Amino acid sequence: MGFERIAIIGLGLLGGSIGLAVRDHLPGVTTTGYDADPATRTRAAERGLVGTVCDSAAEAVRNAQLVIMCVPVGAMGAAAEAIAPTLPTDALVSDVGSSKQTVARALSAALPHNVVIPAHPVAGTERSGADAGFATLFQQRWCIITPPEGADPAKVAALSAFWEALGAKIEIMDPQHHDLVLAITSHLPHLIAYTIVGTADDLEGVTQGEVIKYSAGGFRDFTRIAASDPTMWRDVFLSNKDAVLDMLQRFTEDLTALQRAIRVGDGDQLFDHFTRTRAIRRSIIEEGQDDARPDFGRSDHGG
Amino acid sequence: MGFERIAIIGLGLLGGSIGLAVRDHLPGVTTTGYDADPATRTRAAERGLVGTVCDSAAEAVRNAQLVIMCVPVGAMGAAAEAIAPTLPTDALVSDVGSSKQTVARALSAALPHNVVIPAHPVAGTERSGADAGFATLFQQRWCIITPPEGADPAKVAALSAFWEALGAKIEIMDPQHHDLVLAITSHLPHLIAYTIVGTADDLEGVTQGEVIKYSAGGFRDFTRIAASDPTMWRDVFLSNKDAVLDMLQRFTEDLTALQRAIRVGDGDQLFDHFTRTRAIRRSIIEEGQDDARPDFGRSDHGG
Repeated sequence: MGFERIAIIGLGLLGGSIGLAVRDHLPGVTTTGYDADPATRTRAAERGLVGTVCDSAAEAVRNAQLVIMCVPVGAMGAAAEAIAPTLPTDALVSDVGSSKQTVARALSAALPHNVVIPAHPVAGTERSGADAGFATLFQQRWCIITPPEGADPAKVAALSAFWEALGAKIEIMDPQHHDLVLAITSHLPHLIAYTIVGTADDLEGVTQGEVIKYSAGGFRDFTRIAASDPTMWRDVFLSNKDAVLDMLQRFTEDLTALQRAIRVGDGDQLFDHFTRTRAIRRSIIEEGQDDARPDFGRSDHGG
Repeated sequence: MGFERIAIIGLGLLGGSIGLAVRDHLPGVTTTGYDADPATRTRAAERGLVGTVCDSAAEAVRNAQLVIMCVPVGAMGAAAEAIAPTLPTDALVSDVGSSKQTVARALSAALPHNVVIPAHPVAGTERSGADAGFATLFQQRWCIITPPEGADPAKVAALSAFWEALGAKIEIMDPQHHDLVLAITSHLPHLIAYTIVGTADDLEGVTQGEVIKYSAGGFRDFTRIAASDPTMWRDVFLSNKDAVLDMLQRFTEDLTALQRAIRVGDGDQLFDHFTRTRAIRRSIIEEGQDDARPDFGRSDHGG
């Protein structure tokens, strides 16, 4: 795989999961890590998320061959500046951010002497912090690698091999296309979930207790992703603004069309739309990207 | 509990689950059932969803003390007319529909000589049909009963006792308030999920294969409820039109505010909103209406 010393900057859900997965899958590799939050560093050391928790980012990367930046995308530039003084010039720098164009620019600007190959493992849960990570997070999940133009194929192959060792499947993609794809598969869903949960919280005619009690009717599915880390998601929306606004515009047009169908009582249009969307669910389950059990297997049933 | 002979009209997810739950929890009670689809009747008999599958709705209710209508809400009126000729006048009529004002009107109009007490068990999965039902569907779920003004308390108590025997928790509610509460906790979430899945399906710059591959980023959470029965949901939106359009208007206003915050780069507004929505998730888990495991326990992890 090529890397014997890996540094992880940011020890939350993603950084912690990488550390634990390296420990499980790459026993010869040593890991160092740093997190800006002292409490997270203490907890990371207790859980053994990395071999050595360092007191500064600069110290963590001093001997690294691969550095993975696992901080919110808005903090990438500052975090890269913090490692610049001690970063070996032959170290490969990568990340796990959910938007790739702005991250690539921020990392390259702060680290002009290093090779930067951004990446995005499409995996996560609604939890965050030093207790959230687990070693199997990347199993059977896609990791999208977005090399800059002219990137050394050997470096791309080494980074791919690293993620494959952690259980991920690899896709190489143009950063701009990545940002478009993720705007619809991840960013817009999060924005909508955050919105509807807020709408429900603001109603004067329905109490919050009622929303919670009857959430099994559908609402609860949205609350999971609306419980995701606020800093991470603020940064994602600001850094992938154009693609998110584009997708949001399309979504609003489609919602307006269905709204009109309800208003005028056009049952055929509603039925046709609702029939079409069923097929996509089936494909997602066949691709192994979701649980086929009804209701995600929440109900403990024998049916 | 008071009912010894129960008829179930409609043998899909809800009707089938009621039949199976009665078999498990009320061994002395006999059940008859009917479904308009011959294939569903055959399968219902094979699975033993009810004690006797009848060839007509009229035959199914002939000796019933309690009749539960489990058809799409738009089909309630016609189904009620079909049972009117043979329905004993002392039989209590109820249902499981997701909207209550229009259903109450339709059932009462078709069955003027019977007591009608509508109900709505807030439980379900994305599956439909004769194979979808299971006996534990109602365990720890709320069943909202919406008695008409002046309803006999003894009849309401008997219906409550029936649902409690099936594992449900009971709430008595005004039909109009029910329709408002469910518009936000169930109907709007379904409409939004159907919309975004359709939007993703229509994109020219992103393939359907890409949407499916990277759905673990958040999109897949929406596809589950967008796979729900199209006929049922068409009817729900048309029958609870006013409350759904009201909630949709509020949602659109809130989404527009967040859209503006993204456009102007107002990170504080985004952060504050995303922080507020986390608390609701916690309450839903504490109330036992969702699975606390991260990612609904989809990932098989030890963390």
